[in-house]
This record gives sequence, C-alpha cells and structure tokens, in this order.
Amino acid sequence: MQPTIDPTLQKTDYTDALNQVIDDFLARQKVKAQVMSPDYQEIWEELERLIHAGGKRLRPRMSILAYRAFGGQDVPSMLPAAAAQELLHVAMLIHDDIIDRDYIRYGVDNIAGSYNKLYSELVTDDAERLHYAQGAAILAGDLLLSGSYLLMAESMVPAEKIIAIQKLLGQAVFEVVGGELLDTETAFRGMNAVSAETVARYKTASYTFILPLLVGARLTDLPSEDLSSVAEFGKNLGIAFQLRDDIIGVFGDEAATGKSTTGDIREGKRTYMVEQFFALATPDQKAMFKQYFGGASITNEQVDTVRKLLVASGALAATEEAVSFYESMARNALETLSIEPDCVDELESLITVATRRTA
Amino acid sequence: MQPTIDPTLQKTDYTDALNQVIDDFLARQKVKAQVMSPDYQEIWEELERLIHAGGKRLRPRMSILAYRAFGGQDVPSMLPAAAAQELLHVAMLIHDDIIDRDYIRYGVDNIAGSYNKLYSELVTDDAERLHYAQGAAILAGDLLLSGSYLLMAESMVPAEKIIAIQKLLGQAVFEVVGGELLDTETAFRGMNAVSAETVARYKTASYTFILPLLVGARLTDLPSEDLSSVAEFGKNLGIAFQLRDDIIGVFGDEAATGKSTTGDIREGKRTYMVEQFFALATPDQKAMFKQYFGGASITNEQVDTVRKLLVASGALAATEEAVSFYESMARNALETLSIEPDCVDELESLITVATRRTA
Repeated sequence: MQPTIDPTLQKTDYTDALNQVIDDFLARQKVKAQVMSPDYQEIWEELERLIHAGGKRLRPRMSILAYRAFGGQDVPSMLPAAAAQELLHVAMLIHDDIIDRDYIRYGVDNIAGSYNKLYSELVTDDAERLHYAQGAAILAGDLLLSGSYLLMAESMVPAEKIIAIQKLLGQAVFEVVGGELLDTETAFRGMNAVSAETVARYKTASYTFILPLLVGARLTDLPSEDLSSVAEFGKNLGIAFQLRDDIIGVFGDEAATGKSTTGDIREGKRTYMVEQFFALATPDQKAMFKQYFGGASITNEQVDTVRKLLVASGALAATEEAVSFYESMARNALETLSIEPDCVDELESLITVATRRTA
Repeated sequence: MQPTIDPTLQKTDYTDALNQVIDDFLARQKVKAQVMSPDYQEIWEELERLIHAGGKRLRPRMSILAYRAFGGQDVPSMLPAAAAQELLHVAMLIHDDIIDRDYIRYGVDNIAGSYNKLYSELVTDDAERLHYAQGAAILAGDLLLSGSYLLMAESMVPAEKIIAIQKLLGQAVFEVVGGELLDTETAFRGMNAVSAETVARYKTASYTFILPLLVGARLTDLPSEDLSSVAEFGKNLGIAFQLRDDIIGVFGDEAATGKSTTGDIREGKRTYMVEQFFALATPDQKAMFKQYFGGASITNEQVDTVRKLLVASGALAATEEAVSFYESMARNALETLSIEPDCVDELESLITVATRRTA
C-alpha cells in the first residue's frame, strides 16, 4: 500500500544501528515465544523474515534526522523510538495486505502468504486455509502494533518523554487507520465520499512524515509552537509526496521505478489526479476515460489513451501545481524553524526526493 | 471466545466510574474522527455501541480490587489503567471473532456483523461485502489495541509507573495473541500440538487474571518478589477458571448460565477435560466418543451419551481435581501476601466465583 522512497537521507547512516535495535527486539520475542510453543515462535520468525526482506527504514531515519536537525545530541538514546515506527509500519502493511488481498510484500510472501503455504499440508480446503492464514496475519499485525509501543518505551529518555512520543504514535495510528478505512471504502462509497487529499493527509502524511518528524523533534528541547511547525512541515511534505507518488504511478519510468506504471490505471486507482480529471475534463474526455479506466484487461495502447486524457484535461498539470503548492507550504513551515547547520542539506534532500523525484 | 463471570467482586463498585472513563475516551475519539470524516466517526460509534452492549468490566474491576488489596489509596488515579484493559479485551474479541467467523457478540452485532449490514446497499456481492466488513473489524480492533496503551498513559500516576504497567500490557498482548494462535491451530494441528493447560495459561489467565491483578498491584508499593506472587496467584486462578468454564460448558445448568451446554460437544471443543478423556478412557469408550463428539447435528441423547462417557472415564473427576489443584496453588501464592483487611472477603469471593461456580 505505502509508496517507498529511497532518499540518501543522511550523511551519517544509522540504518545498521536501527536494524540492530529491531533485530534485538525480535530476537527477544522469539526466545519468549519458544517457551510457549515452537508454533508460536514460528510467527515471530515469519515477522523477522518479512522485516528483513525489505523496507528502507525511511520513517526511523527521518526521526533521527529530525532529532539531529532540531538539536538532539544523543542519537543512540532515541534509536528505539525511531525503530518502533518500523514495527508500526509493518503492522499496518500486514493488516492492509489482508484487506487488499495481497499476499506478496517486498517481493516475498507476506504473513498471510507464508502462512497459506505453512498450512498447506494441514488444511486442504483452499478457502479455509486462506482464512486461517489471514487469521495468523491479523495476530501478527497485533503483535507488531503492540510491539511498537513497547519498543518506544525502551528509549533511554525520561519516562515523561516516552509517554509524549507514545501519544504521537497513538495519534498516528488513529489517523492512518482512519485513512485506510476511508481509502478502502472509496471502492464502493465512490470518490465523492472523501477527497484524495484527505486520504493522503491521513493515510500517508500522518505516520510516514508527521509521526517520524514529530517523534524526533519531541525528543529535543523544541518548544511546543515549533512542534506545530514541524507537524505542519510533515503534513504538507507528506501530501506532496503522495501526489507525486500518484503521478509516478501513471507517468513514471517503469525501468527506473521497478514498478508497473499501468497498474494504477488498470485497477482504477482513485487519486487526486483522477479527481482533477473529473473536475476539469470535457464530457467527451470523461466518456472515453470511463471506457478504459479501471479495466483490468485494457491494452497498453488504451492505458496510453488514459494517460493522454489526463494530460489533455489539465489533470496532470493541476496535480503538479498541487505538489508545488504543498511543497511551498512545507518550506514555509520549515523556514520558521532553526535547523542545525549540518542537517540543512539532508532536509533539503528529503524535500527534493519527496516532491520532485521521478522514480 | 472468552468466558464471562459475574462476581460481585467489590463492595465498593467502581463500574460506573470505569464506564465513565471508557465513555469519555470514546467520546474524544469520536470528535477527532468526525473532523476527518463522518464515515470514520461511524466506526467509533460502532465501537461505542459494542462496548455498551455488554461486558461486566471484570478485568478493570479486578485491577481495582488488587490495587486496594495491596494498599493502593487513590483509586481514581488508576481508573484509566484499569479501564484500558477493557479496550484491550474488546480489541481481542473483535479480532478473535473474525478468526472464528462469529458476527454476534454480547447478543448484538459485533463490528464485522454491523459493517456487513452497513455496507449492504454499497456492496451487493455477499462474499465481497463480508470481506470489507471484516476489514473494518481488523481496523477497529487496531484502534482499541492502540487505545489501550493510550488510555493507560492517562493514569494520574508517575510516568515511570505508566511505562511499567504498559510493559505488563505488552506482555499480556504477547501471551494472549500467542494463546489465540495456538488455540486456533489446534483445529488442524490436532490436540497434541499444544496442551489445553498451555492455552488456558496464555489465552485466558494472561490477560483476564494476571494482567489485571498485576496492573493493580504494580501501582501500589508492593516489592517485586510480591509481584511475582501476584502473578502466580493470577496464573493459577486463571487456569482454574478456564477449566471450570470448560466443565460448565458441558455439565452446566443451561437455565442458570443462559448458554447452551450442548454447543461445546457439538463443535468438538478441545478442552483439558477432553484431553483427560483420551488419556483415561477405554478403547470402547473412545470409539463411542469419537462417533458423536464434534457432530454438529447429533441429538440431545447423543450429547448426553458424550457427557456420560466423560463421567465414566474419569475425565470429569480429573478435571475437578485439576481445578482444585490450581485453586490451592492460587491460595498458596496469595497466602504469602499481606492483604488489606477490607479486601479479604472480596478476594475470597473472586476465588470462589472463579473456581467453584456452577453457572
């Protein structure tokens, strides 16, 4: 569900240290699970396998960047707080994949996918086996969601600060779950029920940008009015990121992204750009669009016709404009903040990667 | 999934105050959700409806009892910590119900059940609609699981204590999720994969007894060796409670329990008593048992034959013996602890209700 970006966010790369924190957490859970039953240990091994299979630790790394940028001096103390967000992220992916009926993640089986194989000799009926595999995935997501609060609590910071960042985590869960519900429901409530910007704000910006940035910032001595600016920065950057992602999903370079750029059109993905199309297009353009958009078996030429309609209607341009708007809003928020000199370039690179990338 | 008991746990009844804390939490979430979308507010209204429909707040009340029994003086300060466990409980029920394909809880629609109705005009295909309804239920459970950590953090106790009880919460989630996975898997891994006592320990004792008692105790000044005794008390009481529940599920008085006492036999529920049967019965008894046990459409006479086999084999007596064993282990653990005089009777009543009730 979540788009990924690969920024070289930081000169000082804490990815290994973050992975160490995550691995250590998982190793401890596996030992505890083994005491209960090897069959329980199994689910932790599957979680470990999935987490090792992918994920650029974008959110944890963004937390570290924010922490450093706003004056934080003791990165090791906050690594658990940063890493906890990867657990939340994977929890949400696992549960979203159940809802989206996806069984592959990071190019490997997700939890439902692997349990479907694991149960293959135990449950012969396909539908029944899939049901139990999804059940295991529900439980696996619960474990990581709960784990994210626990890992956050292992940060070497005063207990009051732990509570404060847990509240941020809770707010992000509240928002991303709401965003996921609203996004799922657009499949049958229709596009008018909720705007794509709202979904981008809550499903993407909340826990992919606002939470990581705020967690990092909250662990420094930043005053609360500055924290609001950090949230504002994250919100606008996150929306810009999502809109850029929607553009890449249709107009991106497949060779560069490694992802299909016909899939979004064939599945009829409802994005801000599509909303703009329906606001701007002529009746003829709309008629032709509806003929192809969302058609699972349309030809590549027909996909291309949809692309041309998005350009001709002005929907692409309007979306580019919105990206620029949100980018400038993000920059405005950031300008009110004082940034550590050695982090200025990294923040700039974050903004560029989030809003202007082409792949 | 979880059995319920109706002890008059406490002379001083904090149920209204607990409900107030829960209602206040839900009301705040509803307001925040409304800002995002009425469609998001809806899921919080469904959660409110479900939580109002039932639940005796057993776990929160047990927390309060433990707190008072071990010298806690300021019940209002810990009400959020107590109430948080009800959120966890309902979160687990919602997710378990998806796995068990149950759509009724507390005699009303659960979240999947109510969303299946809510989506009735939006999604015409039955299987598709049920899938989306289960998706909403996954998300609803996530909200309450996350909410339980947040509500706990609202306790008016030092931040260090909040972190300590959150770790207890996390341990309980770890155990109950593991218990649920193992219990679910017995349907196809068979009874030998994990013992019914292990499932009772992790699925029932962990978050229905150990967590509530430990949360209450941890918020007093009880030294850590005493906390181990509290955990030991909760573990043994919880297992005794589950074994008693299994007995009632087969031999209980339907009029008194208000629940079917043929259901467990017709669905072939694997319990400690059934394990004992297979350990103790003669080949002939086993052959007859297998003929009826788990038969969805067996007659009441055949159900009665199964009951008689459980008695004749000695399985019922062995289970009664196990209940007594765990009860005495619980009492032994409790005896090492110093109890506030005005709580002695209530703890005694808790033990009696948990282990010796007939309905």
